[in-house]
Amino acid sequence: SLYFALASIVDGVNSAFLLLTAALVFCMQAGFAMLTVGSVRNKNAKNALVLNLCDACVGGVAYYVLGFGFAFAPINQSLLTADNFTTEGPFLPIYKTKSNGFVAFQHFALAQMQSPLTADAFTYLSGLSVPSGTNNGWTYFIWWFQFTFCLTAASIVAGAICERVRVFAYIGFVCLMMGFVYPAISHAMWDDNGWLNVFYNKVTDSSGTIIGSFGIYGSAGSIDFAGSGVVHITGGSAATVAAIIIGPRIGRFDENGKIRPIPGHNISLIVLGGLLLWFGWFGFNPGSQLGTLSYSDGGFNGNGVPTVYSTAGQVALAAVNTLVLPAAAGITTLMISRFVDKCFDCASMVNGFVTGTVVITSPCSTIPTYSALCCGIITGFVWVFGNKLVERLRIDDPLGAIAVHGFGGTWGVLIPGFFAKPDYVAMVYGPSDGSGGIFYGYGKQLAAQLTEILYIWSFVCTIIGGYFLILKFLGLLRISPEEEILGNDTSHHGGPAYPEDDVGLEEDLATLK
Amino acid sequence: SLYFALASIVDGVNSAFLLLTAALVFCMQAGFAMLTVGSVRNKNAKNALVLNLCDACVGGVAYYVLGFGFAFAPINQSLLTADNFTTEGPFLPIYKTKSNGFVAFQHFALAQMQSPLTADAFTYLSGLSVPSGTNNGWTYFIWWFQFTFCLTAASIVAGAICERVRVFAYIGFVCLMMGFVYPAISHAMWDDNGWLNVFYNKVTDSSGTIIGSFGIYGSAGSIDFAGSGVVHITGGSAATVAAIIIGPRIGRFDENGKIRPIPGHNISLIVLGGLLLWFGWFGFNPGSQLGTLSYSDGGFNGNGVPTVYSTAGQVALAAVNTLVLPAAAGITTLMISRFVDKCFDCASMVNGFVTGTVVITSPCSTIPTYSALCCGIITGFVWVFGNKLVERLRIDDPLGAIAVHGFGGTWGVLIPGFFAKPDYVAMVYGPSDGSGGIFYGYGKQLAAQLTEILYIWSFVCTIIGGYFLILKFLGLLRISPEEEILGNDTSHHGGPAYPEDDVGLEEDLATLK
Amino acid sequence: SLYFALASIVDGVNSAFLLLTAALVFCMQAGFAMLTVGSVRNKNAKNALVLNLCDACVGGVAYYVLGFGFAFAPINQSLLTADNFTTEGPFLPIYKTKSNGFVAFQHFALAQMQSPLTADAFTYLSGLSVPSGTNNGWTYFIWWFQFTFCLTAASIVAGAICERVRVFAYIGFVCLMMGFVYPAISHAMWDDNGWLNVFYNKVTDSSGTIIGSFGIYGSAGSIDFAGSGVVHITGGSAATVAAIIIGPRIGRFDENGKIRPIPGHNISLIVLGGLLLWFGWFGFNPGSQLGTLSYSDGGFNGNGVPTVYSTAGQVALAAVNTLVLPAAAGITTLMISRFVDKCFDCASMVNGFVTGTVVITSPCSTIPTYSALCCGIITGFVWVFGNKLVERLRIDDPLGAIAVHGFGGTWGVLIPGFFAKPDYVAMVYGPSDGSGGIFYGYGKQLAAQLTEILYIWSFVCTIIGGYFLILKFLGLLRISPEEEILGNDTSHHGGPAYPEDDVGLEEDLATLK
Repeated sequence: SLYFALASIVDGVNSAFLLLTAALVFCMQAGFAMLTVGSVRNKNAKNALVLNLCDACVGGVAYYVLGFGFAFAPINQSLLTADNFTTEGPFLPIYKTKSNGFVAFQHFALAQMQSPLTADAFTYLSGLSVPSGTNNGWTYFIWWFQFTFCLTAASIVAGAICERVRVFAYIGFVCLMMGFVYPAISHAMWDDNGWLNVFYNKVTDSSGTIIGSFGIYGSAGSIDFAGSGVVHITGGSAATVAAIIIGPRIGRFDENGKIRPIPGHNISLIVLGGLLLWFGWFGFNPGSQLGTLSYSDGGFNGNGVPTVYSTAGQVALAAVNTLVLPAAAGITTLMISRFVDKCFDCASMVNGFVTGTVVITSPCSTIPTYSALCCGIITGFVWVFGNKLVERLRIDDPLGAIAVHGFGGTWGVLIPGFFAKPDYVAMVYGPSDGSGGIFYGYGKQLAAQLTEILYIWSFVCTIIGGYFLILKFLGLLRISPEEEILGNDTSHHGGPAYPEDDVGLEEDLATLK
Repeated sequence: SLYFALASIVDGVNSAFLLLTAALVFCMQAGFAMLTVGSVRNKNAKNALVLNLCDACVGGVAYYVLGFGFAFAPINQSLLTADNFTTEGPFLPIYKTKSNGFVAFQHFALAQMQSPLTADAFTYLSGLSVPSGTNNGWTYFIWWFQFTFCLTAASIVAGAICERVRVFAYIGFVCLMMGFVYPAISHAMWDDNGWLNVFYNKVTDSSGTIIGSFGIYGSAGSIDFAGSGVVHITGGSAATVAAIIIGPRIGRFDENGKIRPIPGHNISLIVLGGLLLWFGWFGFNPGSQLGTLSYSDGGFNGNGVPTVYSTAGQVALAAVNTLVLPAAAGITTLMISRFVDKCFDCASMVNGFVTGTVVITSPCSTIPTYSALCCGIITGFVWVFGNKLVERLRIDDPLGAIAVHGFGGTWGVLIPGFFAKPDYVAMVYGPSDGSGGIFYGYGKQLAAQLTEILYIWSFVCTIIGGYFLILKFLGLLRISPEEEILGNDTSHHGGPAYPEDDVGLEEDLATLK
Repeated sequence: SLYFALASIVDGVNSAFLLLTAALVFCMQAGFAMLTVGSVRNKNAKNALVLNLCDACVGGVAYYVLGFGFAFAPINQSLLTADNFTTEGPFLPIYKTKSNGFVAFQHFALAQMQSPLTADAFTYLSGLSVPSGTNNGWTYFIWWFQFTFCLTAASIVAGAICERVRVFAYIGFVCLMMGFVYPAISHAMWDDNGWLNVFYNKVTDSSGTIIGSFGIYGSAGSIDFAGSGVVHITGGSAATVAAIIIGPRIGRFDENGKIRPIPGHNISLIVLGGLLLWFGWFGFNPGSQLGTLSYSDGGFNGNGVPTVYSTAGQVALAAVNTLVLPAAAGITTLMISRFVDKCFDCASMVNGFVTGTVVITSPCSTIPTYSALCCGIITGFVWVFGNKLVERLRIDDPLGAIAVHGFGGTWGVLIPGFFAKPDYVAMVYGPSDGSGGIFYGYGKQLAAQLTEILYIWSFVCTIIGGYFLILKFLGLLRISPEEEILGNDTSHHGGPAYPEDDVGLEEDLATLK
């Protein structure tokens, strides 16, 4: 039927969109790996790389077995799926939602998910007649898309504790982060039942029919379109607590507490990594719309013409803002380094625009581009002076993950509270009674943003901090000083990363004697 | 008309999908180049890079002039194409299929392809009235998509014979591989007339009308969704026979046959390459569905509403499995290296998850994800002990291409014989009498898989082996020992890859005196 | 309604296509950065990287604030946008076109653009009833897509003047290039009002209704599908004049004018960069169709079925040609280096296929693939001997940007004048009285191509040359000889790029004493 033809097309278009935008997000793994390895010393290059690879490999298993089960239940089911045609059957059980505002408890190991079967196969095998055009791939795409976001959150932390953390301690962290912590945060924010979500408080009419919904404090929920908070505060706060607990690298601060810079060994890889991250972010932010088409139908019927919308407006705005804010942040950072530190600091510039991408992640679809430009300039200062603050506090964060993701993410989540344009909020989150930023005369949105920030920082620091404290107490967190001076690569990874280069390892070894 | 509007939309969506997924596959060239260069010694870095660039440059010409002509004839022509409207004309000749089960013989240099003309231009120029919406781009997209697969197959081999092969010998190999060998294999497997294809045996009713089809042994043909066999056994078996014939690098095994490891010169580039490969694989596997939409119509009419399907189910499953199996393989490999070799071996871990991507390529859309997880763990062992076996046999394979692609590809093609879920097979290959893996009670599928494996190994080894043997006999295969010790870069490529680095080349030269 | 469902789908598909193809173009920034850094000396690596990062960061702001305003006015407004429903309202003013054939003057800082609001939000907030399905994202996507092209044009220049230009001089150049020069060129060529555009001369019937259009000399306008001229001649001619004015690096030519090669420090990064560029080009060229679907309607009505076309034909042809021409150029270059310079020159091969991508950018959708193959072989000679000519003229161009982009771009724009197939021109630019290349019996197209070439070279050289001459006169263009010998990284960027490598900087410093 025409109805199913159009519904199938919407499904097909959005599926292709999700597949590819999530692939760009996955490409950020190459970015993180290059950024991290370039920022460490030669003698710990392999170590940095192995930690990064553990994110995808350990995390892939952890998110499959556990993580997704804590995150979403049930997956939003479109009109297209076969569920609408059958209330029972071998492949398509009715879901009883097992979730509360804080966590779900359902789709472990992809169990109880809708089968990815297409209608033809389903009809053929079940004997039930399902109209052609039905398709269950969507639930699997949500898994794939969300996985890449979870992966990003975990990848942030390696940069803060590399060169000294034990590999097994990091593997355990990835299991915890991607198996539970990020999933719970993403549930609170993005699941329909999440307490920070715009759909949390249902409004019903006298007959009990849901006629609307609103979020905390009557706002549009906390606005975190692509996850400055969910992804980056989560990663950044974990990095903060981890870096504090594990302590600085030997030689980072001398006996008098004086700061000694430890430059990374390869700036070319740092720049490559930064640019691959920015590239991937054009999947991250615009992709968070989950498609360029949407449709609604007043009650399912399978006949007639569904109302099909293009959602390209918010996708386009997200793309443009994801370019402009980081650009402004990058050049601001370069200028600060020129006029404060008297040199054009390349690594700082990379971190500047990466902080910009972190910042624009939350407000990308709800602020106009001139606001993005202004916020980008501020972002340069957030990064530079945030990172100086971390150093001043004698916290050793080789990659600046705390300032980039922790402070940058926090600043990003604050932005909608100030700059969110009410009509853009309506565009993305549906017509409401007018959520928007303080500069448009609204206050409750900022309250919602602050609530999200506090929740994520406290939730993550408690659990991840507890984990690392226990490991430290057990002596399983950090390699020995001898191993650290020798370098992880030689002590734990079978030899140097660049076996043919002479990089003065002998001199380091001499200090051991 | 509505019919053509919908048909055009399906064409447009799938075209965008093919363009971009194939682009991701092309990006794997950067991955292969980095993986290869990082795995060789500094003195042969340029050599490794030039070989990799020859894949795309020489192969692009070879596949255009010859390869595609041996691969597909005629291209599957959708209802949308102008062919359905005219049986003759200056632009659209009727095709007489020139192909048998083993090879085609038609579209050399893109000859006799449907012109890419859109309907407007066609109508305007020919005077024939073709409904708007018709479009002939699809045949060109199939060329582009299939080219990237052919390119991948060829790229595998450089890693096994670099540091010692002559550039011209390699160029000749690329011509043979991409001009004939891979195309013939891809024809046997993926062309409608291919003898390993699910459509090979047509079932007709009493009037001779085709009412169904089945593959070899009554199975769904050999299940090789994205080419663990077609691409990776082809590349891996060529690598095997090439590495055996060319012999090991000087110094790889000492006079007593003792194994001496030759580590690559840059692990950062190895990791970058591995991650770019994994990234590209999210085009490789999901892209092999060739679109997220499909449609059928019982006899062309150009009126009414065609039945449009979403095929996102198999695309989504392919994406999820392409994540989970390699992840499990990667962490398994790391654990093996930790507990067998007592170090966290970064390069082995990269090869572990790359082997995982090779393995999941065949079964990605026909096995459930829990099977993918189990197979991933096994894959870690296949890689590590497969590579040790190659070494034990005194075959020198600098990149482990034999174990990764040859053994990994073989294991990947076997998987559907054991794990293919019958309803998933029906989803992808159409309703049949129930093809599936042994664990679901079916045996003929495994027989089909074994047939494909034997066919590819023997076909490739015979032809590629013959080529390299002839070159060896003529003395054209390998550079001289002096050149090899000096390093290819200095002896054949105009100087060292990193002219400002001191990498002890003088010491190597001293051994010559 | 069905009309809006189909219109929305076309919008959604093309939006996803534009988002992702432009993202691939953005990925070319990583390619340019790696190509540039690999091609300079170790002591200027950071400098090369900072210049490249300034392209995106400075240029992002400049294009937002100024550039786009000079480029397009008004954005082509599809039938889909809300403008068609209301001629006034708070969000959707009627545009008075402010542009002439050479430049626009309108959308500075995205002002007076259509808001990205979707229909629901618009209807809700304005009280005007806009049919669902309307969407204003398209105008923002054009911004995003065009920005990436402008960025590419600017990125070309860093390679010609790095290792000696002042950072602030380069920042000023980026502002000028992306704030005005490229936008004006792109307006002349691609805006509907541009004097080189196919739509420039409107043909009206007796009642004044527009019934057709033609370009300069009655041709299809100058054929420059994706910008061999607009992007690459613009960048390449700017590089030419900049390299001449700034003068060669110290030591590039000795006191007798003898040429002394200065090899880049890292060939692996050069190859990585080249392959990432080629990868991105599959967004650049096919993406320039701006979508895989198109539709027309004889007068807007909002009812019935619009005529939907697939434009995949030209997209597919562009992809295939973007593979074949560069491949032929790459292998030709390798063969020239082998038989002229007696070595397999890797860096030259990279530049060879990159020149090929530049060349195919203009004619990718209007020449058959066998013409692309022939032109690719010629391209190898254009690059090698073009670059030798530059050297012979004692112009120091570290990356060969003049030959690759200036000469390559010029050759690319010439190609349609010779090889454009009339029916393909009709496919892309609409039915005309038969524009095509000289080899098909037409001459006016070549005249149009020559006009574009002359215009861009003279326009760019005048403005950019003037800028650099003024800076040179003021002493702000080039760092001091002492700083240059020491290396930019130490003198301006806070220390060496690879602080742990011993790269003989002491020896360089010794020459200072």
